[in-house]
Amino acid sequence: MREAFHDQLDSIFADLADVCGNVQQAVRLATQALLTGDAEKAEEVISADSVIDEATVRVEDNCFSLLSLQQPVAGDLRVIVSALRMVSELERMGDLSVHVAKIARLRVPAIAVPDQVRPTVARMAEVAEDMVARVAQIITERDVEAAIVLGRDDDEMDMLRRTSFSQLLSDDWEHGVEAAVDIALLGRYYERIADHAVSVGNRVVFVVTGQFPVSTEA
Amino acid sequence: MREAFHDQLDSIFADLADVCGNVQQAVRLATQALLTGDAEKAEEVISADSVIDEATVRVEDNCFSLLSLQQPVAGDLRVIVSALRMVSELERMGDLSVHVAKIARLRVPAIAVPDQVRPTVARMAEVAEDMVARVAQIITERDVEAAIVLGRDDDEMDMLRRTSFSQLLSDDWEHGVEAAVDIALLGRYYERIADHAVSVGNRVVFVVTGQFPVSTEA
Repeated sequence: MREAFHDQLDSIFADLADVCGNVQQAVRLATQALLTGDAEKAEEVISADSVIDEATVRVEDNCFSLLSLQQPVAGDLRVIVSALRMVSELERMGDLSVHVAKIARLRVPAIAVPDQVRPTVARMAEVAEDMVARVAQIITERDVEAAIVLGRDDDEMDMLRRTSFSQLLSDDWEHGVEAAVDIALLGRYYERIADHAVSVGNRVVFVVTGQFPVSTEA
Repeated sequence: MREAFHDQLDSIFADLADVCGNVQQAVRLATQALLTGDAEKAEEVISADSVIDEATVRVEDNCFSLLSLQQPVAGDLRVIVSALRMVSELERMGDLSVHVAKIARLRVPAIAVPDQVRPTVARMAEVAEDMVARVAQIITERDVEAAIVLGRDDDEMDMLRRTSFSQLLSDDWEHGVEAAVDIALLGRYYERIADHAVSVGNRVVFVVTGQFPVSTEA
């Protein structure tokens, strides 16, 4: 019974890592669409989101069947509920990539991100994608150390977001209100992707150790 | 056994309705702080968020103990997992109210919302608060009909958000980039509060009927 339980749990975590891989692909493509004004890539992200949604439903169904059939208690129970929450967060990260892609699409044939702020936005996107890639690895390897490091790296995203605000609020901002609003919202989307990545990493720590990292939200 | 289960479930739903009441208060106070530039009210929202966070942890603990002690299967299991998801969403709505309050605080002694766009923002806030109030009622009364109506009313929020964008991107926008960015982010926060309200309402439909309303996300 216990062995069957842990096999099924491993399979759920393998699926979570796959979903995370799809999310990473969505973040990467959405960023490419954004920085090059590529409508086709933007469409690709938007239509591929249904794949993430379907995979989410499958993981949820597997979690429920594991809960129903194995009737786990205490720790095991919390592990499966954590898996349910992880997949919700991954799905949300997919939605946020779609938001990025939609801003890209809205501005085609122009590019939403003016050169003045391009390095900041590109770095935000890079940090977000890197965090998602690391989460996939963290899920696969149940890597507690890497998850704790990930939680600390969130600071760079906060700093980048502040930089972007000071750029678009500075006197030499020449790109008007529309571009500024795009950048503010894009910053919010990438920041949320990073937040969710940290949160998913924390849930892996919980799954492995039974406790959340100190001073992080449950 | 079944009776004890349902008593405990009722108590969890009563707690969820209480948390929802706290969220409604947070949305209301954050909006007042925003529209009047009241730093004290903004602080109140920010510090009261810990009350919502603590209540969230209590609801989660009760859900886990119910799961562990009663070992529910199938439908009952999904009901408790729904409750766990509802409380996560309510907590998130509290966080979004804090974001609104922080924009208010940042601009004191000025008011973040220029008169030109005040009716739109005030209406967004009103719609959001009203949706949260209705969700509290929907949770208390397990009111499926009201939840379905709530899902449809989300359209007004979308329309208001579009209106706000056309106002701040119009040629007669005189309030510069900073105010525009504030409005765009505020719109996003209120929209997310409304989205979560709809989602919590849908979960009530699921809890009562075993199915989500047609054409809404799980």
